[in-house]
Amino acid sequence: MPALDFFYEFASTYSYIAAMRIAPLAKTAGVTVRWQPFLLGPIFKAQGWDTSPFNLYPAKGRYMVRDCERQCADLRLTFRLPEPFPQNSLVAARVALVGLEQGWGEDFSRAVYRTEFSEGGNIGDAAVIAGVVRALGHDSTAVLARAQSDAIKGKLRAETEEAQRLGIFGAPSFIAAGELFWGNDRLEQALEFARRS
Amino acid sequence: MPALDFFYEFASTYSYIAAMRIAPLAKTAGVTVRWQPFLLGPIFKAQGWDTSPFNLYPAKGRYMVRDCERQCADLRLTFRLPEPFPQNSLVAARVALVGLEQGWGEDFSRAVYRTEFSEGGNIGDAAVIAGVVRALGHDSTAVLARAQSDAIKGKLRAETEEAQRLGIFGAPSFIAAGELFWGNDRLEQALEFARRS
Repeated sequence: MPALDFFYEFASTYSYIAAMRIAPLAKTAGVTVRWQPFLLGPIFKAQGWDTSPFNLYPAKGRYMVRDCERQCADLRLTFRLPEPFPQNSLVAARVALVGLEQGWGEDFSRAVYRTEFSEGGNIGDAAVIAGVVRALGHDSTAVLARAQSDAIKGKLRAETEEAQRLGIFGAPSFIAAGELFWGNDRLEQALEFARRS
Repeated sequence: MPALDFFYEFASTYSYIAAMRIAPLAKTAGVTVRWQPFLLGPIFKAQGWDTSPFNLYPAKGRYMVRDCERQCADLRLTFRLPEPFPQNSLVAARVALVGLEQGWGEDFSRAVYRTEFSEGGNIGDAAVIAGVVRALGHDSTAVLARAQSDAIKGKLRAETEEAQRLGIFGAPSFIAAGELFWGNDRLEQALEFARRS
């Protein structure tokens, strides 16, 4: 089965929209999705940014909120910008890697996005992440301990370095047939490239 | 008839793609398009950029070229990045305003984009622009003189200030039903907003 790498950042608004759309579209296209949480922070830092470009460039930030509202309205999703924005996504990304090892990473990722961008919850708070893990029926104490292990910390670092090596500069990004596709708007095209490869 | 404002910058790769797509889509939607050439330079300068973000952020620049190649392939358009990039678009924008006054501005705009991004020509050269004007059957000497008039210079400055006032931070941008839409990818949605307004 052809495959697509889905690089997503929990702090990213457009990654939220892509995460909510990708599973049924990939199923229809007959493409396997490899969910790859990573951190944009180090990539932004390398290009001289200490926060989201949506904060650095306020006109772009105001536009992004309205654009996400419109995109979400079309998809019958709620959109709410959490406070603060961007959220600290480190714990969520590590726990997602634990979940992906254990077979519940995709459901966890969607649940985190709903908490953050539909309900406006603070996913930087480990207690909020623990709540999401418990709601999925897992032992949050064991999962959060595993998330702080050297193995998982190293895995997230490796994913982020891999993203940088692939030329990724924003999220969501997709790799299909060896090519990079950037942004929720390119999901369909990336799936089509994967399907034909 | 509902209307859409189409803000485009001659140096912008994605404005090229939008300019080549907009007329038939607008016709189908029953929407009148108001072509509004403007300059992104002053807007970029105001946010601290002295060139295109595609030059400031090389990973984004490399991606943009490949993305434009793929988008153009789908549309059976050629894509070629001109040297230098971005091109100086001042003369082209002023001549477009003359053409729009005289009823040939849309054809001129498409012809300039073809020269620049399909053939890789240098549209910063007034002789190249004069050639485009002549190919459309107009007196290039008279048109270029009119393009250097205070009236046209002031009109381009006013368009650019209006773009900034509207919150425009990139090109192409569309205003439909009082809302801002950014990027070639939002053309269909903007037309739909205009149509329903």
